[in-house]
Amino acid sequence: MRDVFVAGIGETPMGRYPERGLHAMIEEAGSQAIREAGIDPARIGAAYIGNFAGQSLTGQAHLGPLMAETLGITDVPALRVEGACASGGLALFQAVQAIRHGIHDVVLVGGVEKMTHQTTAVVTEALTSAMDVEFEAQSGLTFPGIFAMVANRYFHEHRNVRREMAQVAVQSHDNAALNPHAQLRKRIDVDKVLSAPAIADPFGLYDCSLVTDGAAFMVLTADSLLDAPSAPRRIRITGSGHGGDSLTLHGRQSQTSFKATRQAAAAAYGQAGRSAADIDLAEVHDCFTITQIINTEDLGFFEAGRGGDAVAEGRTTREGDKPVNTSGGLKAKGHPVGATGISQAIEIVTQLRGQAGERQIAQADIGLTHNLGGTAGTCVVNIFEGE
Amino acid sequence: MRDVFVAGIGETPMGRYPERGLHAMIEEAGSQAIREAGIDPARIGAAYIGNFAGQSLTGQAHLGPLMAETLGITDVPALRVEGACASGGLALFQAVQAIRHGIHDVVLVGGVEKMTHQTTAVVTEALTSAMDVEFEAQSGLTFPGIFAMVANRYFHEHRNVRREMAQVAVQSHDNAALNPHAQLRKRIDVDKVLSAPAIADPFGLYDCSLVTDGAAFMVLTADSLLDAPSAPRRIRITGSGHGGDSLTLHGRQSQTSFKATRQAAAAAYGQAGRSAADIDLAEVHDCFTITQIINTEDLGFFEAGRGGDAVAEGRTTREGDKPVNTSGGLKAKGHPVGATGISQAIEIVTQLRGQAGERQIAQADIGLTHNLGGTAGTCVVNIFEGE
Repeated sequence: MRDVFVAGIGETPMGRYPERGLHAMIEEAGSQAIREAGIDPARIGAAYIGNFAGQSLTGQAHLGPLMAETLGITDVPALRVEGACASGGLALFQAVQAIRHGIHDVVLVGGVEKMTHQTTAVVTEALTSAMDVEFEAQSGLTFPGIFAMVANRYFHEHRNVRREMAQVAVQSHDNAALNPHAQLRKRIDVDKVLSAPAIADPFGLYDCSLVTDGAAFMVLTADSLLDAPSAPRRIRITGSGHGGDSLTLHGRQSQTSFKATRQAAAAAYGQAGRSAADIDLAEVHDCFTITQIINTEDLGFFEAGRGGDAVAEGRTTREGDKPVNTSGGLKAKGHPVGATGISQAIEIVTQLRGQAGERQIAQADIGLTHNLGGTAGTCVVNIFEGE
Repeated sequence: MRDVFVAGIGETPMGRYPERGLHAMIEEAGSQAIREAGIDPARIGAAYIGNFAGQSLTGQAHLGPLMAETLGITDVPALRVEGACASGGLALFQAVQAIRHGIHDVVLVGGVEKMTHQTTAVVTEALTSAMDVEFEAQSGLTFPGIFAMVANRYFHEHRNVRREMAQVAVQSHDNAALNPHAQLRKRIDVDKVLSAPAIADPFGLYDCSLVTDGAAFMVLTADSLLDAPSAPRRIRITGSGHGGDSLTLHGRQSQTSFKATRQAAAAAYGQAGRSAADIDLAEVHDCFTITQIINTEDLGFFEAGRGGDAVAEGRTTREGDKPVNTSGGLKAKGHPVGATGISQAIEIVTQLRGQAGERQIAQADIGLTHNLGGTAGTCVVNIFEGE
């Protein structure tokens, strides 16, 4: 197994940019990552791009060669991987594997999604393609509805964490207010979350992640190629895990703990020789506030049923012992679906480099990203360490 | 580098089955491949599925966990790869890499597409997502139009091969007539092709591949796992190459020779230690009749500009020295887009095993598959050898 280094990162600001096309966003983020890596693009051996809903929302699939042409690297074999909202994480997982197992020495990996030019109805239908259409969507379920069922089941099995869910949103907005790349840079309070318009009981508007345009890219390299580190500190990806499960929620033993997360985390922790206790900070897939609470339990940060307590006690804030979503998360930094898994990784790299500005946390040596697809049918966990 | 063996194959009949869902097709083809491999499904380390237009045509993405749940292997991390019409080939390329580089010992790989339940207009729009939508599709181009431009350019650079294109279709129909899995099992003649309704000059109806429902799967294993060969002859994948190019046709130096093919073929030949002359038979991506002619030139079977002559001389028939598309090809076996790359591989394995029945060719020791995406922005070439 070879070491995997992050040689360069680049992302667009996340937000509503309906006038920007896929090409423009890929060009901005991708060329920024290549430039930062300071590597001759001819050395890139393969390129992977995560994208979820391009075909539905923009009529554009086949993003591998689109990316290659846009970035002027048409000799690089390029392909798209898709695993719903975990598409970016899956692309990163593929890229890490390619370096780790000696298939390539330099890999470009990115993600992109263009969403806000469409109506809510079109976006909702596109997102619904991440659940089982023949079995689940036929019932009229959409994602707020299916995760609301998860929340209510969690209330039944553990306890009602409605107030702690609201605190998740508040903490994410607090972080996003300090992130120049975030879509929503305004602070909110618990009362605002609890009194927001209802979406699907128990969720109100502020329990749901955003619809976002954006792209995020990284260049990964094998150790030997990094002649001149491009950043104040070299960052290694020491573990990368991909977990699966049934596509349907009804196909599971548990609806309040996600096997895909546990499987991906076990693989990543095992590779890195780390445990949950070693992780200084994490970007965790908070498509809904309840999902963040469940994920922090499945990742081993907190005991099952105690994720809400940890939020209430401030443990997941920037000053806590386990800061979560210092970027603002999907909730407030934004959720450009196919790019999210890479955007999470960029936050971790930025924190580990000590370049997170006003939102920099004090202790940032080992970070983790957790990217979920659908109702947790797919999960990718990556572990990053500063040298 | 480790050896890669084909342990099991399975596919649905190709055709118009609008009443069949994605689950049903995956179940039939996938469980057949697993059964034939005679391997405990718990040994499968990863699963890859090729699918191109599921989101547009069925509202279903996130096919990794759908496949895993359908086949009862939800502990297997599964993901979808997409490269337009080369999605199946790309999935196979990923699977081969995973075994070759020691990432996994047993891999399931498949492809699926459900198309015929939709109108021609919807299918045409979905297929158009394989070209550059912002630059090409905006002009009103669809794929028959863009490949017709390629054909006319070929006529200009070399010579008019309209009659030889018709012979490509006739030969494919001749083969499909002997293939129980083929969608169109009727023979046609050159006059029928030349007098068919026009699609896009110079193409008539019979120059174009089909709209098809179908799924195809394979189980690949590392050498050490094959305790009991399941077939009369063990088949090895000795070379696998992925080539790229610009997404747009206008981004190329040549419109009549595809760099992605040449790049993928060079990689596959190099790995296998073989040359074009060693190939006994090939399944070649004949989305349009001209494409087959160009591909056989780019693969090195025939000189540039001489692919038409080879067809006219009967060299690509089952009795020729370089049989092409003995299955009937995309033209007559069918083109279930995301499954096509795997379906091509199944024909080669079937021929190499000597199990192709009435369409069996005499000399079948080394076979090649060539799978193209979009206007050749993506290409995958695989080489198969019988022991």
